[in-house]
Amino acid sequence: MEKLYKGLKVIRELSAKTSWPASVTPMSAESDGTQAFWPTGFSSGAVAAGIKYSDRTDLMLLLADGACSADALFTTNLCCAAPITLSREHLRQRPSSMRAILCNSGNANAATGQKGLDDARAMAATIASELGMEPEEIVVASTGVIGQLLPMERVLGGISSLSPTLQRESGIDAAMAIMTTDTFPKFFTLELRLSGGVVRLSGIAKGSGMICPNMATMLAFLATDATIAPPLLHEALSRANRNSFNAITVDGDTSTNDMVSILASGKGAEISADSEDFTLFCEALEALMTFLAKLIVIDGEGATKLVEITVEGAADDGDAELAARTIAQSSLVKTAIHGEDANWGRIIAAAGRSGAKFNQDELALHFNDLSILEPGFIANFSEEAASSILAQPSYTITLRLGSGPGRATVWSCDLSKGYIEINGSYRS
Amino acid sequence: MEKLYKGLKVIRELSAKTSWPASVTPMSAESDGTQAFWPTGFSSGAVAAGIKYSDRTDLMLLLADGACSADALFTTNLCCAAPITLSREHLRQRPSSMRAILCNSGNANAATGQKGLDDARAMAATIASELGMEPEEIVVASTGVIGQLLPMERVLGGISSLSPTLQRESGIDAAMAIMTTDTFPKFFTLELRLSGGVVRLSGIAKGSGMICPNMATMLAFLATDATIAPPLLHEALSRANRNSFNAITVDGDTSTNDMVSILASGKGAEISADSEDFTLFCEALEALMTFLAKLIVIDGEGATKLVEITVEGAADDGDAELAARTIAQSSLVKTAIHGEDANWGRIIAAAGRSGAKFNQDELALHFNDLSILEPGFIANFSEEAASSILAQPSYTITLRLGSGPGRATVWSCDLSKGYIEINGSYRS
Repeated sequence: MEKLYKGLKVIRELSAKTSWPASVTPMSAESDGTQAFWPTGFSSGAVAAGIKYSDRTDLMLLLADGACSADALFTTNLCCAAPITLSREHLRQRPSSMRAILCNSGNANAATGQKGLDDARAMAATIASELGMEPEEIVVASTGVIGQLLPMERVLGGISSLSPTLQRESGIDAAMAIMTTDTFPKFFTLELRLSGGVVRLSGIAKGSGMICPNMATMLAFLATDATIAPPLLHEALSRANRNSFNAITVDGDTSTNDMVSILASGKGAEISADSEDFTLFCEALEALMTFLAKLIVIDGEGATKLVEITVEGAADDGDAELAARTIAQSSLVKTAIHGEDANWGRIIAAAGRSGAKFNQDELALHFNDLSILEPGFIANFSEEAASSILAQPSYTITLRLGSGPGRATVWSCDLSKGYIEINGSYRS
Repeated sequence: MEKLYKGLKVIRELSAKTSWPASVTPMSAESDGTQAFWPTGFSSGAVAAGIKYSDRTDLMLLLADGACSADALFTTNLCCAAPITLSREHLRQRPSSMRAILCNSGNANAATGQKGLDDARAMAATIASELGMEPEEIVVASTGVIGQLLPMERVLGGISSLSPTLQRESGIDAAMAIMTTDTFPKFFTLELRLSGGVVRLSGIAKGSGMICPNMATMLAFLATDATIAPPLLHEALSRANRNSFNAITVDGDTSTNDMVSILASGKGAEISADSEDFTLFCEALEALMTFLAKLIVIDGEGATKLVEITVEGAADDGDAELAARTIAQSSLVKTAIHGEDANWGRIIAAAGRSGAKFNQDELALHFNDLSILEPGFIANFSEEAASSILAQPSYTITLRLGSGPGRATVWSCDLSKGYIEINGSYRS
């Protein structure tokens, strides 16, 4: 319950600080966590199957009442896990008639060879038979340790007990069941006003190490009641992903199991191509995904700071992204952020090795609105003013490379001893 | 003195474990540290100029009796420091008549604009006038904090006091003066038997964070009495660098100040192009540089392990290097190494996101000679045997990607709380 209360507090605070699009209403996380959550047509449930942990839920199901338009983005890691291979296959076969997302924590079913793929198939077959549907209608996901076979007896036993836990009122149980080293569950719901009525978008996610964005694994499961064809849904998801889950980094590692998947039930307003509604839908989806992405960074392993890093004035967006990511992933920058040290030299040094092109004499740097460095390496800032910004749990770093049109924003966290503690002993 | 004794111990132990080329005799670091060190024609000295530190030397000079063939490799960081710009200019003007390398620690003279470049020029002009030579005959290097102007009165005062400290018998004073967060001085000398006689190669180096290889800054200053033309010297240095300083990583950060520079006095045997002697010289130079590179990794900030990571069976050497570097730089792999955890999943996950092409079912992994993973994800190893390897201060990790000809080796260290401690407060 402690983890839930922490989550509710963090979510409320971040929501209050977020500039939501005008057409969107955030459904704030109430303290009892039992408000209406999922869009029309969805329910979720969770059980404790005992896969790895003994005293918590570790298996969850997000279920749609009927066939959904569906899409997913998967890890680009060549060593992708068995459920990634299987879910990619299912989505290719049934992009407009998916029914459910099944996910376990505690074991990634990655680097498990043919047996692992057989196990993922057995998971899909078991829940399908339980619910009276086809295995191809199920997205399967896993997160946890790599290289160990799933304890299938417990997994299948857990799957058989999922149905009675299903409910429409909350996504919290589902969000709790997919946690690994996460310290709080991550979930949120938006309502979006379209010309044809109000639709809802809900999502749950997990971090928390190996985020770039890609192990402890990054997972996000989204649901909407919008009526939208699979190609449009794919376009919206890809677009939103670029500036949300793909723009965060905890440690630069990309997992074998990352997945962002969305189901659209079609019970609500219809969204057609090239419409104003589609633009609003994309905007709302990106806002929801960015919100969940920030929750992941805030809960990065050992993280104590959420820093928004923007690079502007680059030759193009690609150069801006290169520089922003390199700064965000630099261990030296991350330890300076942790130490609350205005070590601007490490920031420009990271930009300098990133591969982005610029003239170092044109560099300009701000922490929030405080100018740290002006072109020509003029650094006349008040250490006191800088320190008071760096002491905050969240602030922005803006580096201007020159006068080009390129711009990119990345969210990152600090690197603390907590990260070492968690990761020096995660497997055992 | 404690730091010196530690250095002598580490150097002796590493030398004893090194497979030196047949034509090479390592000149072991004797416990009094005062054996003959520099090749014929060289001397070095150091003073405490009070640049940043109050109780140690921080300014050193490596001086040749006459004109030297010279070469240097510089950081690829776009935000390169003023001494890098200046030394590049000097070496372009005088590749066959350089006389000295002047280096300070405590301040990197990086991100200091035009004033910084003027200061670097003043350093070269002052030592040149002191020694009766031209400023263009001097290589200047700096290491330390970025973004602060050098305290030039103290720097120039220190330069004026260098001459009386010069000696031929030891490189230790010079190696001590260039340390920043290094915990021990790094130096070594080899003798190489050529057809025309014996030549000597000596070097000093420093780490220790921001090594990739490229802050706290990586610096290496090498000297030989071989007679070798500048283009050949450049070829030898570039070749040797690829598998030595360019094959190490502490934290993936590349400094604004990295430099590897070599002076050849021409007092000894002549080395001509395409000769067997040139091959032997290249081999010896690579052996010396690899030795110094390993000392840097052993002394990586907070490091407790030296791990040799080899990737083989790759499509080509480039793919092998991509995979080896990504494994070596992964924070998740580095914390697992620190935690002595046989977390092979993190190793293959890092390879999987590296960009190297392979089929995951063909992966094979060894820790030393112990098979951890066989193709098809068969991981039948004894945890006990793995743990006893991982408990050692030094071991090898070999990942076979497939059956291609590509191969690369990288040296890395673990990521510990010590790194966070050092880097959370380095600037202040």
